[in-house]
Amino acid sequence: MIYLTRRADFSASHYYHNPAFSPEENARVFGKCANLNGHGHNYTLEVTVKGDVDATTGFVVDLKDLKTLMEREVIGAMDHRHLNKEVPEFKDLIPTTENLAIVIWNRLEPRLKIARLHRVRVYEAEDLFADFYGEA
Amino acid sequence: MIYLTRRADFSASHYYHNPAFSPEENARVFGKCANLNGHGHNYTLEVTVKGDVDATTGFVVDLKDLKTLMEREVIGAMDHRHLNKEVPEFKDLIPTTENLAIVIWNRLEPRLKIARLHRVRVYEAEDLFADFYGEA
Amino acid sequence: MIYLTRRADFSASHYYHNPAFSPEENARVFGKCANLNGHGHNYTLEVTVKGDVDATTGFVVDLKDLKTLMEREVIGAMDHRHLNKEVPEFKDLIPTTENLAIVIWNRLEPRLKIARLHRVRVYEAEDLFADFYGEA
Amino acid sequence: MIYLTRRADFSASHYYHNPAFSPEENARVFGKCANLNGHGHNYTLEVTVKGDVDATTGFVVDLKDLKTLMEREVIGAMDHRHLNKEVPEFKDLIPTTENLAIVIWNRLEPRLKIARLHRVRVYEAEDLFADFYGEA
Amino acid sequence: MIYLTRRADFSASHYYHNPAFSPEENARVFGKCANLNGHGHNYTLEVTVKGDVDATTGFVVDLKDLKTLMEREVIGAMDHRHLNKEVPEFKDLIPTTENLAIVIWNRLEPRLKIARLHRVRVYEAEDLFADFYGEA
Amino acid sequence: MIYLTRRADFSASHYYHNPAFSPEENARVFGKCANLNGHGHNYTLEVTVKGDVDATTGFVVDLKDLKTLMEREVIGAMDHRHLNKEVPEFKDLIPTTENLAIVIWNRLEPRLKIARLHRVRVYEAEDLFADFYGEA
Repeated sequence: MIYLTRRADFSASHYYHNPAFSPEENARVFGKCANLNGHGHNYTLEVTVKGDVDATTGFVVDLKDLKTLMEREVIGAMDHRHLNKEVPEFKDLIPTTENLAIVIWNRLEPRLKIARLHRVRVYEAEDLFADFYGEA
Repeated sequence: MIYLTRRADFSASHYYHNPAFSPEENARVFGKCANLNGHGHNYTLEVTVKGDVDATTGFVVDLKDLKTLMEREVIGAMDHRHLNKEVPEFKDLIPTTENLAIVIWNRLEPRLKIARLHRVRVYEAEDLFADFYGEA
Repeated sequence: MIYLTRRADFSASHYYHNPAFSPEENARVFGKCANLNGHGHNYTLEVTVKGDVDATTGFVVDLKDLKTLMEREVIGAMDHRHLNKEVPEFKDLIPTTENLAIVIWNRLEPRLKIARLHRVRVYEAEDLFADFYGEA
Repeated sequence: MIYLTRRADFSASHYYHNPAFSPEENARVFGKCANLNGHGHNYTLEVTVKGDVDATTGFVVDLKDLKTLMEREVIGAMDHRHLNKEVPEFKDLIPTTENLAIVIWNRLEPRLKIARLHRVRVYEAEDLFADFYGEA
Repeated sequence: MIYLTRRADFSASHYYHNPAFSPEENARVFGKCANLNGHGHNYTLEVTVKGDVDATTGFVVDLKDLKTLMEREVIGAMDHRHLNKEVPEFKDLIPTTENLAIVIWNRLEPRLKIARLHRVRVYEAEDLFADFYGEA
Repeated sequence: MIYLTRRADFSASHYYHNPAFSPEENARVFGKCANLNGHGHNYTLEVTVKGDVDATTGFVVDLKDLKTLMEREVIGAMDHRHLNKEVPEFKDLIPTTENLAIVIWNRLEPRLKIARLHRVRVYEAEDLFADFYGEA
């Protein structure tokens, strides 16, 4: 059993807003992130898959396939986008780092072949990241 | 003569749009950056000052003063903001990395005391940065 | 279940010395770290908490609270300090990276609300770090 | 129980080639890595050991011993080498990041004293790494 | 006048060998780099151009053009290649970091339009890099 | 003319204190750095030399010689040391990043052969560094 991790970057905008909160609550809970003009980040995504090493290739997963999947489901959909306005899952879900990790897991997990998804890590910045392992 | 450099980070949104261009021109020239929903980055700012070392302190500049100036003129004004909508200089100026370096120079240079401003470097991402030395 | 990690930095001095060892033993076991004049590091602390995502905020933990706790219990107590001389836990405990991770766990774990502490990681340098999960 | 991790770097060449594959299959499966002239990387190795903290030293493992072991078994054997031609394990094994992690585990695990090997991580580049925990 | 820098990475093999030297001289002068099996690196290239900011675009250079040029002249020609065997300039020139910076300058400088090339920086590793400004 | 830069790291303690200042002045001017127990950093040193490329080696300077010089004059003298107490230059000079860059220049410049010293850069941390070019 080997765990293989691939990183990729994307840049996106977002803001934090709960329509059920009063303006004061949004400001208090979300601080500077409540600014509805939005702000943005260079996100780093780490996708970790696990499986056995194929004896004929030395690979646990074909990296080209993994890269294509990450490109189609995440980078192509989120890079240079406004997460609240352009990524459907965030229509009614606040795009925190935690929720971003879950959304990306849900996009990748059903489409992975051979190897299994082990972890999705999303860095919002060097000093803040969230990990999701698909656990309830 | 010593050159001292201080880094600081801020996160902001922006888009690239020239109202004198047709929609097709904006799309062709600015590519994914033309998306009017905006996208964002974790910017890194490096401010370099130069001067002689004060014999009584060993400092070329009081770092607390420099930090206060950078905080007030740049981080406080741009962090968690939309550059096009909330930073006045970008009302009619495209917020490219190049222009951001010039705008920050113009904010810092007249307010620096004792040491002189030598360079403003702005990283939009690890693989792209602009340097401005105040040269015409 | 989501795991959220926050990084913070602090700079401190320390030395390694066991009063039960002879001077020769201290020198042999601890090498350059046995120098009683002390030396120092830029430490990086990573605190990982785990819990469920709150549906109204998208947060597993309020980052402002976590930052305040890390600031009060670790950064405020250890930054620009001499670990052996100024942090009470190291009065009779050698401030290795391993023990630093345990000491920080013991400071944070009883004071965390809602989310649970999962891991404390301490980097003494880029090429050396210790992880503690609270396991006996 | 504490986990301690030590990093080290080495630079090496390799190529990917399965003699049971046709030239076309090698090109299709391995892409640019199939070039028999070889190419290379600055690899980063992270070795994580686990154990109890020794009360007299504050160490889970003597770092000098760990460094000596890593130097002898990995850095000395692989740095500035061609993995396919000069590291015996890769005579009939494709030197992918996955297999490199397993080979390094097998070199280190039987020779570690006191602490136990927990994980071998090998970075081929910043955006690709493999983890091996010794699990079948 | 603004300076804009773009980074890109490539992985390649090389060795150092002067056919006019005796085997002993090659070994003494080039150390581990003299191994004719070759070894490799993840190189990082930084290309800095300088010029005025175009008022209609905010750019000193069209980044897509610069990226295309770097891709064609450097990455496409050197990534996953053996520098001594596959890059013509190194047929009779030792592929040190110094010479690599000069070779890349000579490939880029005549093909840059509008902005002028200011500096080529090549990192062989994080702790070693060469800068060339085109100065005799 | 090529510029070659070599990095190296060292860990050291220091404090800032001017005996001509009152205790209040020391506290006000130097803040947390005035703590006489000392604190420490992982310093990163970058030494840049310049010269012509030797046609027989492809080197501007023999890296082994440069490494030996840096090791003897800087790393061996400052690593795991208390700068105020163990580095003679700082007996009456405050060990700021600025002064450290000058002291290291003065140790290296007279001992460099063939290539000339161009710049000494000292990082006290990722977000603070000083450059000295030997200019009065």
